Amino acid sequence: MYSFKNDYSEGAHPNILKALIESNMQQTDGYGEDRYCMAAKKLLKDKLKRSDVDIHMFCGGTQTNLTAISAFLRPHEAVISANTGHVLVHETGAIEATGHKIISIKVGDGKLKPKHIQMAIDEHTDEHMVKPKLVYISNPTEIGTIYKKQELEDLYAYCTKSNILLYIDGARLGAALCSKENDIEISDLPRLTDAFYIGGTKNGALIGEAFVICKDCLKEDFRYYIKQKGGLLAKGRLIGIQFLELFKNDIYFDLAKHANSMAESLKIGIIKYGYKFLIDSPTNQIFPILPNEIIARLQEKYSFFIWQKVDKDNSAIRLVTSWATKEEAVKSFIVDLRLVSE
Amino acid sequence: MYSFKNDYSEGAHPNILKALIESNMQQTDGYGEDRYCMAAKKLLKDKLKRSDVDIHMFCGGTQTNLTAISAFLRPHEAVISANTGHVLVHETGAIEATGHKIISIKVGDGKLKPKHIQMAIDEHTDEHMVKPKLVYISNPTEIGTIYKKQELEDLYAYCTKSNILLYIDGARLGAALCSKENDIEISDLPRLTDAFYIGGTKNGALIGEAFVICKDCLKEDFRYYIKQKGGLLAKGRLIGIQFLELFKNDIYFDLAKHANSMAESLKIGIIKYGYKFLIDSPTNQIFPILPNEIIARLQEKYSFFIWQKVDKDNSAIRLVTSWATKEEAVKSFIVDLRLVSE
Amino acid sequence: MYSFKNDYSEGAHPNILKALIESNMQQTDGYGEDRYCMAAKKLLKDKLKRSDVDIHMFCGGTQTNLTAISAFLRPHEAVISANTGHVLVHETGAIEATGHKIISIKVGDGKLKPKHIQMAIDEHTDEHMVKPKLVYISNPTEIGTIYKKQELEDLYAYCTKSNILLYIDGARLGAALCSKENDIEISDLPRLTDAFYIGGTKNGALIGEAFVICKDCLKEDFRYYIKQKGGLLAKGRLIGIQFLELFKNDIYFDLAKHANSMAESLKIGIIKYGYKFLIDSPTNQIFPILPNEIIARLQEKYSFFIWQKVDKDNSAIRLVTSWATKEEAVKSFIVDLRLVSE
Amino acid sequence: MYSFKNDYSEGAHPNILKALIESNMQQTDGYGEDRYCMAAKKLLKDKLKRSDVDIHMFCGGTQTNLTAISAFLRPHEAVISANTGHVLVHETGAIEATGHKIISIKVGDGKLKPKHIQMAIDEHTDEHMVKPKLVYISNPTEIGTIYKKQELEDLYAYCTKSNILLYIDGARLGAALCSKENDIEISDLPRLTDAFYIGGTKNGALIGEAFVICKDCLKEDFRYYIKQKGGLLAKGRLIGIQFLELFKNDIYFDLAKHANSMAESLKIGIIKYGYKFLIDSPTNQIFPILPNEIIARLQEKYSFFIWQKVDKDNSAIRLVTSWATKEEAVKSFIVDLRLVSE
Repeated sequence: MYSFKNDYSEGAHPNILKALIESNMQQTDGYGEDRYCMAAKKLLKDKLKRSDVDIHMFCGGTQTNLTAISAFLRPHEAVISANTGHVLVHETGAIEATGHKIISIKVGDGKLKPKHIQMAIDEHTDEHMVKPKLVYISNPTEIGTIYKKQELEDLYAYCTKSNILLYIDGARLGAALCSKENDIEISDLPRLTDAFYIGGTKNGALIGEAFVICKDCLKEDFRYYIKQKGGLLAKGRLIGIQFLELFKNDIYFDLAKHANSMAESLKIGIIKYGYKFLIDSPTNQIFPILPNEIIARLQEKYSFFIWQKVDKDNSAIRLVTSWATKEEAVKSFIVDLRLVSE
Repeated sequence: MYSFKNDYSEGAHPNILKALIESNMQQTDGYGEDRYCMAAKKLLKDKLKRSDVDIHMFCGGTQTNLTAISAFLRPHEAVISANTGHVLVHETGAIEATGHKIISIKVGDGKLKPKHIQMAIDEHTDEHMVKPKLVYISNPTEIGTIYKKQELEDLYAYCTKSNILLYIDGARLGAALCSKENDIEISDLPRLTDAFYIGGTKNGALIGEAFVICKDCLKEDFRYYIKQKGGLLAKGRLIGIQFLELFKNDIYFDLAKHANSMAESLKIGIIKYGYKFLIDSPTNQIFPILPNEIIARLQEKYSFFIWQKVDKDNSAIRLVTSWATKEEAVKSFIVDLRLVSE
Repeated sequence: MYSFKNDYSEGAHPNILKALIESNMQQTDGYGEDRYCMAAKKLLKDKLKRSDVDIHMFCGGTQTNLTAISAFLRPHEAVISANTGHVLVHETGAIEATGHKIISIKVGDGKLKPKHIQMAIDEHTDEHMVKPKLVYISNPTEIGTIYKKQELEDLYAYCTKSNILLYIDGARLGAALCSKENDIEISDLPRLTDAFYIGGTKNGALIGEAFVICKDCLKEDFRYYIKQKGGLLAKGRLIGIQFLELFKNDIYFDLAKHANSMAESLKIGIIKYGYKFLIDSPTNQIFPILPNEIIARLQEKYSFFIWQKVDKDNSAIRLVTSWATKEEAVKSFIVDLRLVSE
Repeated sequence: MYSFKNDYSEGAHPNILKALIESNMQQTDGYGEDRYCMAAKKLLKDKLKRSDVDIHMFCGGTQTNLTAISAFLRPHEAVISANTGHVLVHETGAIEATGHKIISIKVGDGKLKPKHIQMAIDEHTDEHMVKPKLVYISNPTEIGTIYKKQELEDLYAYCTKSNILLYIDGARLGAALCSKENDIEISDLPRLTDAFYIGGTKNGALIGEAFVICKDCLKEDFRYYIKQKGGLLAKGRLIGIQFLELFKNDIYFDLAKHANSMAESLKIGIIKYGYKFLIDSPTNQIFPILPNEIIARLQEKYSFFIWQKVDKDNSAIRLVTSWATKEEAVKSFIVDLRLVSE
């Protein structure tokens, strides 16, 4: 059984394990104030071409989202999110648990545009309603689509003009930045958003996300929030070491390219046999629509999620590739698809 | 410079790194539902001699405390803690941030007794005050002392009779269970408390705590709380693998014994030169009182925290040993203490 | 300028002021434990034909909703509400501020049906999502429609079977129970819901809502929640006295009948001149659709809210009548409508 | 049975009831935007000699405290309070329920001084601890003592210099300002604190507190917080009318003077028979220490709270007087005390 269920099925890139072994018996300070975290932050700032951003290490995406959002908002302020937004549906109300409403905007392609922000503003007019204050987007989105540079520029300009913050969930940021359709550099991000995170867990790390605060007024006292929400690791070096390895030789991007390329191979193979997709996604998640009986046959050898019922006889499945996906597995899937499709 | 600052200065026990490498390219399910977490839970239940407890893996102590306590309490219910309690002073108001008051009880030795519980009950009599509902203790306490079996039995009986939950923070549980003065078996714990956690981070793991729920009515829907508070790791296996290694051959206890033994060697050496201690602690944290000028001299070669001013000329320092503390470092510290004391 | 903006434009029914004066210099206990609150609760239980419900007095609707809902739910549990629900849009995120998500269900007539509950259940399947646990409805709804007895029976049966609580916001309960289309008795409510409140503020009281808990397991420690959320009035008698007056001779129902009857007179008049309504509402809120220029003319003499743009030339306005609405004002409005319509 | 239990046993000053009747059938806007609230705010600003403060009306003290404090603080910031502080012990954890820790400072006389603030600052040094940000005091304190002008000036200067807010709970502000020992004018307050409230409920109103924000940066969006916490009354005029009446002819101060004078009469009488007091309080709460058997005898005719056990045979009781306390009742109490003391 080979799994295309997600991009966190395996452990970490071997370089990371090697670095953990080499540094293992060194003594370092706790709580992310060690030399590895310092070096990783320095390296990331170089990649971002911005020495003035603040960087903090987190264990996971939900933890990053809830800590950042609750730190940035006053009690009556709310989040705007696409209806597919991870914070809206797949974090067990983590944001609401910190006291903030999420305003849901229905979109087809997972992406928010200036007009959606204006809709939320128009509907929230006085003190009987929450005040929209932070736009949450994911890049790539939860359905694999990506923002083009112009789209992000427009969105951020609109947010700024409207006195609203823009926050990017980058759980799979590598996949977005390495997509063939992408025209954004990682060093563009600090000028296109107020805060974002660079996802490690889903791109070769054992665990870890690097959270970047670009806007000055959001930086103050941020370590207090991490500690209060339970995210300050005693052995913070664990995450520093990993980001150092991932970005030292730009492995991070190589891994993401591999994931995307594996997804593209799957896509080409699937198209060849005449199948369509729920949405056209140029990253490491694809959503082919297959007849239910074919899905059942494939499930005998592969694991993946059934994403959505399309009609009586067909469903969309989600196939996720990663830095660790094996080329043979992809080939074998296509072969098997052909066999069961005949 | 050798550090006695804490027990999380180094990485992990080599067996753990070895296991991470061996399992690295295996595919597993996410969110702690993988075979390693399953096996670790099974093994821990065997050690606890109780198949009916629920076990969940966490990244750190504050996260465990805040998730458990906020899950267990209704909005008007409060925690009772010793004035030294970690949740009270060193978690940036993490418990209050989930909405619950902590009632502080002043004690000299870090330990709560039935009379303290009764004091809190007596002072909270009606709906204008919070309702004390959960007793938080640490074993060992934050100042290194431990609970004897009879003390824990008495405390738990009193809590139960008073309809109050007992929760044990076991960040350094190994050090308590392996103290020469200890008479509690790990398998005693499920019948002496409603929930507790077995700390990994401070006893040889890279990261991780194993949280055990003993009382049936506290078990329902617990994974929802972990997710909501940001504690559900995508690669949950990371913690499962570690607890499996730590408990497979009881390495966990060997590591704790080493830490305690290093602390005892320090203690014996320090006593020999006529110094006293702030408190008599039989675990891996000791608090010698030294003249300020001697402290300054020691700081040239060793790092440690100055814990408390004792009088104009003397202060108590905290020395922490761990599974990784080197015998030579301990010997060298004593030699240096003698030199600067002469 | 006569106001049809809302049903809380005037003070209180004269009997209430009279009772306040008569009782003014009597000494009573504080915090709602006085003889007037006791008598009012007794009287309400008689009207409800249920001595076993618990009744608590509140100052306002938002306060009642947020206190009840946060008391009833555990942290991961969520509310289901129609997209028109007051808690969803017009309480500044009061429910989310207590930590709970509200799941919005789009409906045309403001009313939730069993199929909507099932939709919410179907979409929330595991611990990565909140758990739907409480259905919030208003009767009448925020757009003036009402639940028929069969509808409420079906909904409550479905909730109960699904282990979900049903809560009714009765801010305008009088208007619902006194509607010509209504077939529910006030004494039916305890068997058709788990908790609800009888709105006083919008039906003749100066201030005050009577909150009724029907389900036993929701009753425990409820006064703690009221105090914690700031709702326990020192001079609780203020609300007790009012409910005593409102229900002593069933004035409550007389006042609501008057409000409904005034709305019906308006409706008949408006229909006569050929106008349509946004929705057919049989209570004290009506939503006629009028040409914008006619609206502008009416605004010279009457105040009311413009509810919704219907097309380029027409908008729906909201007219609200109350216990205090004067018959002459209604007649005069119709006359003026005729004049400006000619 | 005559009650000295509290200062909210009776209804309201007759002028208030008269004004409610006179205004009863007038139509006004809702939610505190009516002409009465406007006029009351204008009048209060005149009394405060400051047109630039913001004033909001609330129903009760706990509601005011929790709304203000949660609006003013970011999530990691904490309150400093005397151990007798109302928010600390008698509001069912209302502040913690909004997410904020209260740091308790043990004091004998209920009053915080600069040294106490410094203590709290010294003990909270980094991100593992909360950040002290708001000092909560009551004037008079919960045990009837008052702040002198110099004390308040010193405290506010110290807070300001330390970047900490000062908030005054004025539930019984009238009693403080009208105490014989007082040297503070109501118009001094805006320059001696960042925010405070003028208590109505305990000084002649049916219900209501007037909350004053002096510091500019605390004013923004404040109505959102009131609504979110359930404190925005539909018929807000109810409170506006009352404050208008209370301050129109300075009745507010006359009522407080009467309350204080009644307490002083009691005090003089009690001293005459040789009894001592728990604390010397120059306002409307006094705490005589009496033999338990005398207390029992007095309880046959008077109700009051037993405040604290003093020794085996004696206890302190609390006697509270108010605007409504009858001179005959005070005389009769003294006579009865003499009778049972003989």
